[in-house]
Amino acid sequence: MRILLINPNSSPAMTRTIANTGKAAAAPGTEVVGTCPPGAPLSIEGHSDGVLAAFHTLKLVEESGPADGYVLACFDDTGVDAVRERVAGPVLGIGEAAMHAATMLACRFSILTSLERSVPILEDNAARYGLAARCRGVHAAQLPVLAFEDGKSAYAVLRDAARAVLERDRSDALVLGCGGMAHLAPRLAGELGVPVVEGVACAVKFVESLVSLNLKTSKTGGYAYPLAKTPVSGGGHHV
Amino acid sequence: MRILLINPNSSPAMTRTIANTGKAAAAPGTEVVGTCPPGAPLSIEGHSDGVLAAFHTLKLVEESGPADGYVLACFDDTGVDAVRERVAGPVLGIGEAAMHAATMLACRFSILTSLERSVPILEDNAARYGLAARCRGVHAAQLPVLAFEDGKSAYAVLRDAARAVLERDRSDALVLGCGGMAHLAPRLAGELGVPVVEGVACAVKFVESLVSLNLKTSKTGGYAYPLAKTPVSGGGHHV
Amino acid sequence: MRILLINPNSSPAMTRTIANTGKAAAAPGTEVVGTCPPGAPLSIEGHSDGVLAAFHTLKLVEESGPADGYVLACFDDTGVDAVRERVAGPVLGIGEAAMHAATMLACRFSILTSLERSVPILEDNAARYGLAARCRGVHAAQLPVLAFEDGKSAYAVLRDAARAVLERDRSDALVLGCGGMAHLAPRLAGELGVPVVEGVACAVKFVESLVSLNLKTSKTGGYAYPLAKTPVSGGGHHV
Amino acid sequence: MRILLINPNSSPAMTRTIANTGKAAAAPGTEVVGTCPPGAPLSIEGHSDGVLAAFHTLKLVEESGPADGYVLACFDDTGVDAVRERVAGPVLGIGEAAMHAATMLACRFSILTSLERSVPILEDNAARYGLAARCRGVHAAQLPVLAFEDGKSAYAVLRDAARAVLERDRSDALVLGCGGMAHLAPRLAGELGVPVVEGVACAVKFVESLVSLNLKTSKTGGYAYPLAKTPVSGGGHHV
Amino acid sequence: MRILLINPNSSPAMTRTIANTGKAAAAPGTEVVGTCPPGAPLSIEGHSDGVLAAFHTLKLVEESGPADGYVLACFDDTGVDAVRERVAGPVLGIGEAAMHAATMLACRFSILTSLERSVPILEDNAARYGLAARCRGVHAAQLPVLAFEDGKSAYAVLRDAARAVLERDRSDALVLGCGGMAHLAPRLAGELGVPVVEGVACAVKFVESLVSLNLKTSKTGGYAYPLAKTPVSGGGHHV
Amino acid sequence: MRILLINPNSSPAMTRTIANTGKAAAAPGTEVVGTCPPGAPLSIEGHSDGVLAAFHTLKLVEESGPADGYVLACFDDTGVDAVRERVAGPVLGIGEAAMHAATMLACRFSILTSLERSVPILEDNAARYGLAARCRGVHAAQLPVLAFEDGKSAYAVLRDAARAVLERDRSDALVLGCGGMAHLAPRLAGELGVPVVEGVACAVKFVESLVSLNLKTSKTGGYAYPLAKTPVSGGGHHV
Repeated sequence: MRILLINPNSSPAMTRTIANTGKAAAAPGTEVVGTCPPGAPLSIEGHSDGVLAAFHTLKLVEESGPADGYVLACFDDTGVDAVRERVAGPVLGIGEAAMHAATMLACRFSILTSLERSVPILEDNAARYGLAARCRGVHAAQLPVLAFEDGKSAYAVLRDAARAVLERDRSDALVLGCGGMAHLAPRLAGELGVPVVEGVACAVKFVESLVSLNLKTSKTGGYAYPLAKTPVSGGGHHV
Repeated sequence: MRILLINPNSSPAMTRTIANTGKAAAAPGTEVVGTCPPGAPLSIEGHSDGVLAAFHTLKLVEESGPADGYVLACFDDTGVDAVRERVAGPVLGIGEAAMHAATMLACRFSILTSLERSVPILEDNAARYGLAARCRGVHAAQLPVLAFEDGKSAYAVLRDAARAVLERDRSDALVLGCGGMAHLAPRLAGELGVPVVEGVACAVKFVESLVSLNLKTSKTGGYAYPLAKTPVSGGGHHV
Repeated sequence: MRILLINPNSSPAMTRTIANTGKAAAAPGTEVVGTCPPGAPLSIEGHSDGVLAAFHTLKLVEESGPADGYVLACFDDTGVDAVRERVAGPVLGIGEAAMHAATMLACRFSILTSLERSVPILEDNAARYGLAARCRGVHAAQLPVLAFEDGKSAYAVLRDAARAVLERDRSDALVLGCGGMAHLAPRLAGELGVPVVEGVACAVKFVESLVSLNLKTSKTGGYAYPLAKTPVSGGGHHV
Repeated sequence: MRILLINPNSSPAMTRTIANTGKAAAAPGTEVVGTCPPGAPLSIEGHSDGVLAAFHTLKLVEESGPADGYVLACFDDTGVDAVRERVAGPVLGIGEAAMHAATMLACRFSILTSLERSVPILEDNAARYGLAARCRGVHAAQLPVLAFEDGKSAYAVLRDAARAVLERDRSDALVLGCGGMAHLAPRLAGELGVPVVEGVACAVKFVESLVSLNLKTSKTGGYAYPLAKTPVSGGGHHV
Repeated sequence: MRILLINPNSSPAMTRTIANTGKAAAAPGTEVVGTCPPGAPLSIEGHSDGVLAAFHTLKLVEESGPADGYVLACFDDTGVDAVRERVAGPVLGIGEAAMHAATMLACRFSILTSLERSVPILEDNAARYGLAARCRGVHAAQLPVLAFEDGKSAYAVLRDAARAVLERDRSDALVLGCGGMAHLAPRLAGELGVPVVEGVACAVKFVESLVSLNLKTSKTGGYAYPLAKTPVSGGGHHV
Repeated sequence: MRILLINPNSSPAMTRTIANTGKAAAAPGTEVVGTCPPGAPLSIEGHSDGVLAAFHTLKLVEESGPADGYVLACFDDTGVDAVRERVAGPVLGIGEAAMHAATMLACRFSILTSLERSVPILEDNAARYGLAARCRGVHAAQLPVLAFEDGKSAYAVLRDAARAVLERDRSDALVLGCGGMAHLAPRLAGELGVPVVEGVACAVKFVESLVSLNLKTSKTGGYAYPLAKTPVSGGGHHV
């Protein structure tokens, strides 16, 4: 089984971290191909980075060889619905994977992400996935995404923020709200005493599960293959 | 006042229709510039078209001169949040404009869009705008977006579908769920006997309203300007 | 175009403030008639004031000459649905107008009203308009409505309360939750650095927009004209 | 114990029916005073009737002697919140009473009311009481309120509509959505084979329950007594 | 009329307290039989105690003679739906009874329960009853259930926690979230100045009300009598 | 890795079917132990069967040797929360597993269960998991649970019901709402042309995933281990 694990931003360091996490999670027979779209922003911090990243991710999916399943490793789950339209295998974002997993382990969870500007995006996603009632809060550690490449000082800030969040929200699990935090989960779990869920490993395992059960993306509704357009005439122009 | 009215797909005919509708709605002192992004799909039918359209719309916004306000004339409201990050003036999608307007005129409304595959997208938007309880149903006329360029036969199908929808949902207003239907609204309203709300004119008027009140997009939260990235090294690569 | 701008309470000072705000917002060709129902309470603070105000507002609407559109300038939106039944033109409450406008400008907003007793009313309205998820909190400045007639000391209290609310809720826009605060919006916006949305100007512009688009209140459902009663016999009596 | 049972419309026949139902439900020691406000509309069909009825109901409450509890016998629950502000004893609308009772007896209920125009009002109430998920539908028998005074032909229409509603919604209880239907409940229950809940009797019993437990309306929040106004000067005037 | 008042845990002291509260609330003609299932846990603190208690409660209901109505006096409402299937008379949990009652008396309420582990259970119940928007918070006094048998020191802790909760949540009523607190309600109400709602008395009165109105549990839907099984062969076994 | 796969009813045939499905889904290194609690009802049809099954399931968990993860194979997810309290490894119900999986594959799904009486239970679960907006309907095939042991005639009924449900709900995936249907999924998927999700295989794979990632049930909140009780005195007694 071949899973394409895409980091939708173009940071090589983060792509490596994510790929390592995904490969470590996969079963023996699973080939995990870690990659990222060259033209995407270096990090995804907000809606506009998200649009650029989704565009380049779609292109990368078209250009990559066939895969049995797909993981998009941006916690905003940008581009997930669009990729689902383009392929047959199951596609999972790390945000939804982590949130679903958290509901299997804890009564209530909190999300800790990088920057405040991502908070409403994740709140909206939690609501759209229907998990708003299980999520007691989305919080920002006030660290830019790329800070986690240097795990050292970022780790301490993250851990202290996590402790404050868990106490304030009275949550019994923590969800890490950024793909760049993936490698910090085990250490955090050890210090915090609650399940710390990061989405890269969860998404790889869940996609592996769906592929092994021969479950594919539905092709009859909102994820049907894109339609061919009947070109009418020229392109854009001012009127 | 200068309003950039963007049709996020690249159909010249639809761009013309939308521009005409927007110009007709604007007040005397308002300059409405109708345009579309050349690289975008010819029509937006689903998530993947939406990602492409949002990408090219962002680029078009960057390249266009400054404007006081912006209207994105795709009923899916694709790219609206991203454009809000990039500019200071108010930005409105025609989907949200039409849905908000409908709640000002009727107790319950129904949406009639082009294809079934867009139904879950619009249901999700209605829920995200919080208007799900006011919207009694999202339905598809089973016509591709470009069919409305030839208004003749499409009109009859649309009208009959609208009648069926209003009766089934017991709604007292109809929202037209596709920018390409904009020019059909007055005739439909005449035949159906309920308010028929299309978003292009509504969005132009609402943006005009916000600009005249000197209300701008907030720059302190989720719509703050995108952050500069500190480039670290190279681009995407397989690991 | 003639818009009837009704302050549903009977305070002459507040009626003047509201009328001035509405007139300043209107386009050149729009006549805004500011008025208030003589028998209504001097201020609307709670449900029972709201019932009295709605009753007298209905009477005022009947007695006033015809208008193309209507704005009810009480943030509780008391009587809005009832007036919609009585007239053909569009009718807007300043509460709904401001909340809808806020969602066009910011990811999340907070409402600052006068007294604690109005908080559950506004929370319920936000929920009914479907905007609860966008509204991070409704708060009271602990000032009676009439305090804003003397803008001086009230302004400082309001500004400090607004700052505290924005920090606590991490909101990126402020909605002023009382018609009497209308004239304080520009100054507050200057000091707070986020959009400050007040409903009088928004409602006037939105009604103006709907009228110019020839969009009227639906007359086939919940806003149909009241039915004539077939009188049966006498009035109320103890049994 | 003295319970004021107010029919908020001014139909003498309906007031008698409601009073009889309430008296029959009350315990031996409970005095139920059935009454109605003379100036109110003859029936409450929509928002504007509701505003008039609430106004006259408030006046009636002020003029009536003290009571230990209050029931407002309009299924729209118009004026309930306002009366709660004015008195100390518990106040219940028949709509909320019936809906709460239905959730105690059945997994899912449907509401059958008089006219289509009341449907969105009751849907909104069900949502505000939080019972929307338990209510599978609000339907209209297409009969005006006063039709039920002549129980004969109205009964057959109501019963047939009820059967259709129960089958369509797969509900296991029926709520009668109009005070004028109160006397028809026992006969309907016999024919339909499911609990038929009407609100007059339920509200009288629930208020009786609360009074006997010495539970009163809270006076510290949204139902605190109305505040005295500091009159400033004259009344309404055009500006 | 005979009401079976079951304390679903097996604490004799708590059973006595609950029985006394229920008997004091009942009308003259009502016989309240207080009882508890011998095999149940001594207190119900969490999901697993809840399953055991529900099982033994079901058995107790089968073994007890017929009753006209039933009250289950655990605030988690464990087993309520199951008992509804087994009997014809109305069945009420004290959690739902208290929450419904609170909405009749106050705009917003808060729940104070014993231990943190019960908080998500009660939050979920409030949501399922549709009352989440009326409930501003569920909080734990951090006292085990059995602590309330010794009312002395527990009372002071409870009162101080209640004060903090009311101030933090700005609620205008308090709901006591544990059957063992029933006898403390009147004293708390006196000190706190808001309605203090405890569910045992409310549930007894509401069931008494429903019985007196001849309203029974529906037998056509989700509460129909359990079906007889056609035994196939042996029992459980490892495969 | 050892996963305890519990069929919470006591039907040997269904236990075999479920065990076979679970074993077939598991990875090479995973030992799946299929079992059922001898005292449980032969099938779970409604709340009261659910309480009995949960009780015996809890006992079975206590008596079984240690396992790394647990699957409860009743689609109602009865007892899942309680088992989570008792063990450290992850615990999953097949209902939640299937619903979460469906949201990863399709925009909208419908559930087809055995009997009408289970519909409200599953609707409530879907709402509690937050997936109500993704689930367009819960329907009953009107077949008792044990009918599926004889797959022949039951299959045809199920398939025809599934077709009707998919057309009516316009859903793009079907969730099988009963553990006894597990073996029919592949054949149904072949005939229906949409993903057919059954929960046994999904739950086994998801639990396997969580165990392999060393993610365990949280022990600090609502799933903390049950507390020891301080026995006070005797058992249940009538008062």
